[in-house]
Amino acid sequence: MAYGLLKGKRGIITGALDEKSIAWKIALKAKEEGATFTLSNAPLAMRMGAIKQLAEQCEAEIIPADATSVEDIENLYTKSIDVLGGKIDFVLHSIGMSPNIRKNRPYGDMNYEWYQKSLDISALSFHKMMQTAEKLDALNEWASVVGLSYIAAQRTFAFYTDMADAKAMLESIARGYGYRFGKLKNVRVNTVSQSPTVTTAGSGIGGFDVFYEYAQLMSPLGNATADDCANYVITLFSDLTRMVTMQNLFHDGGFSSVGVSEDLAMKLMQAHQQEQQ
Amino acid sequence: MAYGLLKGKRGIITGALDEKSIAWKIALKAKEEGATFTLSNAPLAMRMGAIKQLAEQCEAEIIPADATSVEDIENLYTKSIDVLGGKIDFVLHSIGMSPNIRKNRPYGDMNYEWYQKSLDISALSFHKMMQTAEKLDALNEWASVVGLSYIAAQRTFAFYTDMADAKAMLESIARGYGYRFGKLKNVRVNTVSQSPTVTTAGSGIGGFDVFYEYAQLMSPLGNATADDCANYVITLFSDLTRMVTMQNLFHDGGFSSVGVSEDLAMKLMQAHQQEQQ
Amino acid sequence: MAYGLLKGKRGIITGALDEKSIAWKIALKAKEEGATFTLSNAPLAMRMGAIKQLAEQCEAEIIPADATSVEDIENLYTKSIDVLGGKIDFVLHSIGMSPNIRKNRPYGDMNYEWYQKSLDISALSFHKMMQTAEKLDALNEWASVVGLSYIAAQRTFAFYTDMADAKAMLESIARGYGYRFGKLKNVRVNTVSQSPTVTTAGSGIGGFDVFYEYAQLMSPLGNATADDCANYVITLFSDLTRMVTMQNLFHDGGFSSVGVSEDLAMKLMQAHQQEQQ
Amino acid sequence: MAYGLLKGKRGIITGALDEKSIAWKIALKAKEEGATFTLSNAPLAMRMGAIKQLAEQCEAEIIPADATSVEDIENLYTKSIDVLGGKIDFVLHSIGMSPNIRKNRPYGDMNYEWYQKSLDISALSFHKMMQTAEKLDALNEWASVVGLSYIAAQRTFAFYTDMADAKAMLESIARGYGYRFGKLKNVRVNTVSQSPTVTTAGSGIGGFDVFYEYAQLMSPLGNATADDCANYVITLFSDLTRMVTMQNLFHDGGFSSVGVSEDLAMKLMQAHQQEQQ
Repeated sequence: MAYGLLKGKRGIITGALDEKSIAWKIALKAKEEGATFTLSNAPLAMRMGAIKQLAEQCEAEIIPADATSVEDIENLYTKSIDVLGGKIDFVLHSIGMSPNIRKNRPYGDMNYEWYQKSLDISALSFHKMMQTAEKLDALNEWASVVGLSYIAAQRTFAFYTDMADAKAMLESIARGYGYRFGKLKNVRVNTVSQSPTVTTAGSGIGGFDVFYEYAQLMSPLGNATADDCANYVITLFSDLTRMVTMQNLFHDGGFSSVGVSEDLAMKLMQAHQQEQQ
Repeated sequence: MAYGLLKGKRGIITGALDEKSIAWKIALKAKEEGATFTLSNAPLAMRMGAIKQLAEQCEAEIIPADATSVEDIENLYTKSIDVLGGKIDFVLHSIGMSPNIRKNRPYGDMNYEWYQKSLDISALSFHKMMQTAEKLDALNEWASVVGLSYIAAQRTFAFYTDMADAKAMLESIARGYGYRFGKLKNVRVNTVSQSPTVTTAGSGIGGFDVFYEYAQLMSPLGNATADDCANYVITLFSDLTRMVTMQNLFHDGGFSSVGVSEDLAMKLMQAHQQEQQ
Repeated sequence: MAYGLLKGKRGIITGALDEKSIAWKIALKAKEEGATFTLSNAPLAMRMGAIKQLAEQCEAEIIPADATSVEDIENLYTKSIDVLGGKIDFVLHSIGMSPNIRKNRPYGDMNYEWYQKSLDISALSFHKMMQTAEKLDALNEWASVVGLSYIAAQRTFAFYTDMADAKAMLESIARGYGYRFGKLKNVRVNTVSQSPTVTTAGSGIGGFDVFYEYAQLMSPLGNATADDCANYVITLFSDLTRMVTMQNLFHDGGFSSVGVSEDLAMKLMQAHQQEQQ
Repeated sequence: MAYGLLKGKRGIITGALDEKSIAWKIALKAKEEGATFTLSNAPLAMRMGAIKQLAEQCEAEIIPADATSVEDIENLYTKSIDVLGGKIDFVLHSIGMSPNIRKNRPYGDMNYEWYQKSLDISALSFHKMMQTAEKLDALNEWASVVGLSYIAAQRTFAFYTDMADAKAMLESIARGYGYRFGKLKNVRVNTVSQSPTVTTAGSGIGGFDVFYEYAQLMSPLGNATADDCANYVITLFSDLTRMVTMQNLFHDGGFSSVGVSEDLAMKLMQAHQQEQQ
């Protein structure tokens, strides 16, 4: 069902890799809700992805951009404004990558060059997208900027290593730039802390499956899917949430506020009994 | 602008006292968005209020209920379901009163009977509304329950006395019942922590004006108004936020995430200079 | 090992029921560290307890007090000051009871009279102890007040029902009165959020054992014991922590900051494999 | 007054620049409490500092180390263990520097090379100190690691720019490595979020004075001094706080839990009245 919540709005959506991506779902939903937008991804990631199919479905232009390159980001805004016919109303940052995770490095054996790279790609890129937008005056009044985060920013998941630190930084940037952009142009900046989601990126993380099941057992509503997340992010892009800013918003079926669920307790009791047999 | 976000939804809205009330604005907006609902308020409060006018505007029936009375709440649900023609999809809890604040008692001179009354009216009533709903099976799957809160639940504002404790409890009840209702019926429960708002209730609190101005100076987007809050709560009642539960959501123009704003710093510097003249 | 951290300090310690009690361990440790103090408990609870033995060990007088009675609390302070020979330097609040938990009522079937009683005993009593102290001017400058809390104040544990709400309120009272007492007399007020602890009170809660094991699996240092807690609380009563106030301090072996531990993940994986056999 | 809390303990204290430094005060206090330790600072910073005087007072050896260099940190541990005659029991990380702040760059005009440098010096160095310690097995069981942080990690102070993001990352590293070190060696890791403190480093930040006064007006106990902080950190190094880990501990006279203070409200009202004259 569509409501026209983003009618007339122009946006930039980064990070759609394939149809499992949260960004992919957000693009589809934004289209349904009446927005026009451009799609962007890292030149390298894009080759692998099926992003062209998405672009066609959304009548959206693809503008490749390495999110660590200020030059690329400038080009992304300039071209987007040109293509869309005006300044930008919403921006989705869905960008993250950790070479340390890819190479299965534990947190006690970080490669520090890679660590800096994780920060640059996953967190600093968020700042770059906003600083560049400010310098180019690329956003409209009351625009909405959303970054995707994860609860590892608050609590430790051993397998998430330096990405946890990157997400903590991402959320800090949302506050810092949210303050600045709020004063300057009434632009709001928030992060959405999403349930573990079965995406191509997510599945790459070792131990993901166990954690996915754990979160499922813990959350009274179960894990939020990529589709659910798309719905939620649409509300944050709409004009109905104009005064929400500098927040990290949990979209997780309740996971973040559960101490222990009865389902998990049951599971543990069963495991106990089986051990004793 | 209306989107039809609540088309076909049935609700209960409590706490609309007069046209400054947040609940009043939410009622108007819910109507615009296609919902049907009943209005409720304490029998005593209602006589003073202009609620009849609102009821007419919204084509809504008024069902008086003392929110501390389980019997009254039962009647509220039963009649609402009857009048609206089906189970309930959203509930707004906008109820709070502290005799200690009314009588200007400082936090070091609480009357404990009144304190218990503050808790009963402002926090326990939230639990009663949910327990009663569960017992009567009055809510539809994926219903949304929202309570209005205030940042005094996290940080101390001297003038807010026992109401701060009541709000902390309110938010705790949202988590506790959100867990329960999530498992039972996929119902979500959240609180919205709203900017200080110029309402008849709000203005009654001593020192309100200074605090209002302080929050205004601190928040990059300024204080959220009752109208803004209505917009936001509509998104929480809609189907787009189904996986957000057990959360306390700041709707405050950024206030909660600001350490100190430049506007406030400027004001303090001016005060300093004037003192030294 | 003793350091003399509380040499010359006078205190009041409530809630020591038997030798498993956290308050019991705190009393022993406070004695070791050079403090003199009185012990207090509810008249009813005391008959069952072995508190006299503790009193002898600590050369402490027992002053029975129902923590919901302002009169009893007045008597507790007046007598304590008299017995100890001066105003009070530290107060431990370790008081909590929920009739709803005792009777195994689920959160969807609360008896509201009992609920109010839970709040009165477990949370309001904390306010009463401070308001009474203020009125009697019973505390010295830089005194330290500590209440024992639990992470259920932030996250839901289904079996903890109305006690979670009471603890949320307790922590709110610590902030509210900490602000007030800080300005008035440089008194600090904090809560310690302790691991699940094998006490006579703790074990009474249904599902305690599973949760205890869960917390043990999750916490990198394991659950903090009552002895550990005693050590920590001593630091909070000492002069070394004078500027810590209005805080809820987790003393939990890391539990509160863990998303999921490897030990728990392992356990879940084993349970999984066993199911599939 | 000294208690012998660190008797027999060996430590490493970084970041003592001059006698205003928090690390300087911690060194003096650690000495008083019976510890032996080495002092470390960046080779460049040290030349300016009066660290030799401190070293004499504490009978401590100075081991220069650039905290961004793993090699230097290795040397720091190896030499410290050699000099002190055994593995390390406590580590203080008091290191932070932002070229962007030094050059007065606003948050909308960050130099990204400098930004990465801020992160490397102020946050990554904390990880490097722990990873190196783990690789060299340089810490004793139950060792305590403390990093100094600031509330800008949670709330925005415009002048604090990229340092806020570095502090958010620092606190995240404390959680991540605290989890790891807890499992491995019962080592605990925490950050202390200290009041604005009049140090040579602190004063360098533009707008520091206004903020200092603001925090003073807001905190019921006033701002915590460097001496207060030293006292507190000693408790965290002692054996009495063994089960506190992965926490960010506010040491701020209550600032973090105050919404608005009466003193600040008064000041604002005065400013108001003066404007209207």
